[in-house]
Amino acid sequence: MSRTLPTVGILGGGQLARMLALAAAPLGIRTLAVDATADACAGQVSGLVVAAWDDEAALAEFARQVDVVTFDFENVPAATAERLAGRVDVFPNPRALAVAQDRLSEKTLFRESGLNTPEFAVVDTRDDLVAAVGRIGLPAILKTRRLGYDGKGQFRLKAPADIDAAWAALGDAASGHGLILEAFVPFDRELSVLAVRGRDGAFRTWPLTRNWHVDGVLSLSLAPAPGTSDALEQEAVAHARAIAERLDYVGVFALELFVRGNELLGNEMAPRVHNSGHWTIEGAHTSQFENHIRAVLGLPLGDTGVRGASAMLNWIGEMPDPAPVLSVADGHWHDYGKEARPGRKVGHATICATDAGSLRAKLVEVGAALGREGQVAPAVEALG
Amino acid sequence: MSRTLPTVGILGGGQLARMLALAAAPLGIRTLAVDATADACAGQVSGLVVAAWDDEAALAEFARQVDVVTFDFENVPAATAERLAGRVDVFPNPRALAVAQDRLSEKTLFRESGLNTPEFAVVDTRDDLVAAVGRIGLPAILKTRRLGYDGKGQFRLKAPADIDAAWAALGDAASGHGLILEAFVPFDRELSVLAVRGRDGAFRTWPLTRNWHVDGVLSLSLAPAPGTSDALEQEAVAHARAIAERLDYVGVFALELFVRGNELLGNEMAPRVHNSGHWTIEGAHTSQFENHIRAVLGLPLGDTGVRGASAMLNWIGEMPDPAPVLSVADGHWHDYGKEARPGRKVGHATICATDAGSLRAKLVEVGAALGREGQVAPAVEALG
Repeated sequence: MSRTLPTVGILGGGQLARMLALAAAPLGIRTLAVDATADACAGQVSGLVVAAWDDEAALAEFARQVDVVTFDFENVPAATAERLAGRVDVFPNPRALAVAQDRLSEKTLFRESGLNTPEFAVVDTRDDLVAAVGRIGLPAILKTRRLGYDGKGQFRLKAPADIDAAWAALGDAASGHGLILEAFVPFDRELSVLAVRGRDGAFRTWPLTRNWHVDGVLSLSLAPAPGTSDALEQEAVAHARAIAERLDYVGVFALELFVRGNELLGNEMAPRVHNSGHWTIEGAHTSQFENHIRAVLGLPLGDTGVRGASAMLNWIGEMPDPAPVLSVADGHWHDYGKEARPGRKVGHATICATDAGSLRAKLVEVGAALGREGQVAPAVEALG
Repeated sequence: MSRTLPTVGILGGGQLARMLALAAAPLGIRTLAVDATADACAGQVSGLVVAAWDDEAALAEFARQVDVVTFDFENVPAATAERLAGRVDVFPNPRALAVAQDRLSEKTLFRESGLNTPEFAVVDTRDDLVAAVGRIGLPAILKTRRLGYDGKGQFRLKAPADIDAAWAALGDAASGHGLILEAFVPFDRELSVLAVRGRDGAFRTWPLTRNWHVDGVLSLSLAPAPGTSDALEQEAVAHARAIAERLDYVGVFALELFVRGNELLGNEMAPRVHNSGHWTIEGAHTSQFENHIRAVLGLPLGDTGVRGASAMLNWIGEMPDPAPVLSVADGHWHDYGKEARPGRKVGHATICATDAGSLRAKLVEVGAALGREGQVAPAVEALG
């Protein structure tokens, strides 16, 4: 008979669940993911229950099999999270999840915690949109309040004439998910704070990560974020801590920030492990995945120190040739085992180095070998 | 439908197969282990076929499902390896496996490759044993030629009066596995060379590892081995390379060495990933497990450079309290998910640090917190 090992239940079975499972296994911890699709990629390395969020019988049985529940995916219906929370510990707690699911409550929380945000206005009707454009000015971005991710559910307005097209694209969502108009901020840099909070309130952050998006999807991350002052880092960490404490948050989360001059603006928070923290698998002493598992099970949090400088390159749509990354010193390959599909996150690579200069040289080499000079260029420039 | 991913078949489903599976998954590579027991611990993270080595139908079906076959366990019957090699690529090749399975052919290979060994004599009868003791002298160790591991199948003779007891203990094995008497070498240190050779002949080694055994079972490893001269390291690596080339070896192997003064003596080789290389998971840029997977699939070998100094502590019989290791900076926990059982390898911990002094301080701290000062003491002394 096998020993009974602690089991972490994960709502969602994508690459985040997959990497959580791979971080849990060395600790002797099992995982059981829930996903509506039978070929969810976490199922290659984890137990998998194939069920919809409203399949109460399947979720009740799932709850019986796990010691704690967490998320690969934050857009789980609040009702599902609440129902599970009545049966088993759920981390982060459903209230934290609900706040992070809604751009309005998220931005309200940021402001209450002392973190400024771009101007925004709630939009329920076309008239609201016209009024909001008048107040906030253009350019601005109309977004669904809920269920948006990776640039989906967004429409950028550059001129008043775009109001009709924006309403045509997203107006239907106004009554369902709600809409919000956000001022477009001409930011200098995008940063994220990766943070973890334990069941006992212990709080740790990894060094700030600098991120570059393409078409709303993360393309490149660099950590520690070069050229970030200690004061800015301390301010960012203080905001992350204040937000986590207000939510009584347990687990890893990412706080995405814009930097404009010396000012930090809160963009959004992801109540889960985050793409901008994938570099921690090889670049930090404890990865975001392992620390999330430790946090939700109440184990001591691990050291978030770094081993040097790291860059993460996202693979979108299909996997490139692995050879250049496998051949570079301290280069690491991650293939999520997914089918290729346009726009889909199918894998990533992390390149680590002892210092910024060496990381820069490796990125130049790998970028050229892959024919992806454009993807690495912002990091090459930032490290230069 | 899921994408077809490369699959590595592994003969044996213990902790080595488990760690191979965990290293393969990030690369988008699946694993399928074969083991006679349904609760083999690799099955928690890998596909598992439950079958005996002589179950020809099950192994033929297994061969159809995998792209390449390798080993978690070297004592697979040669006939099984040969049969599989007729259906699918098997690495290391069955000849290399056969050499490493037999202490006589192994030592003969070492000597042919220029690596001296302790004196030895083949023992088929009690008279052979008496003659061997006369020639080699005492103390000496009588060992089965095949199927010994972790001190099993061994009897140490200190005086001629021990001949009867030795023969009573192991004489039955003389006709089956064969016996060998080896001179007991009063060595100064035990080292291992962890090496990997690719399908293209590329060859890399990790820095030498120093090992301490207790009751014939590895207890503690330290890497890079402190106090090892460059000349000694180069000599050890040259021996490993010569042996690998003679065997046309593909994959990771460990060459265990005794150091006596400035002399290296070959003890044995393990034709697989090895307990003395577990520290490479966190302590090196590429782990022995990942490089073994890369090697057998013909992928480029990864960088074997180290991140600093590492110590590995083996957990035998049952798992200790994880908190002290989880709490120390850059401390890593490995629980193989096995039932506790006396003498069984159930897990290990690796403690990493940027330098020897810091590693020493962490080992003192962890040893005290676990009440295992004795287990860490040799490393504390070696690092002092």
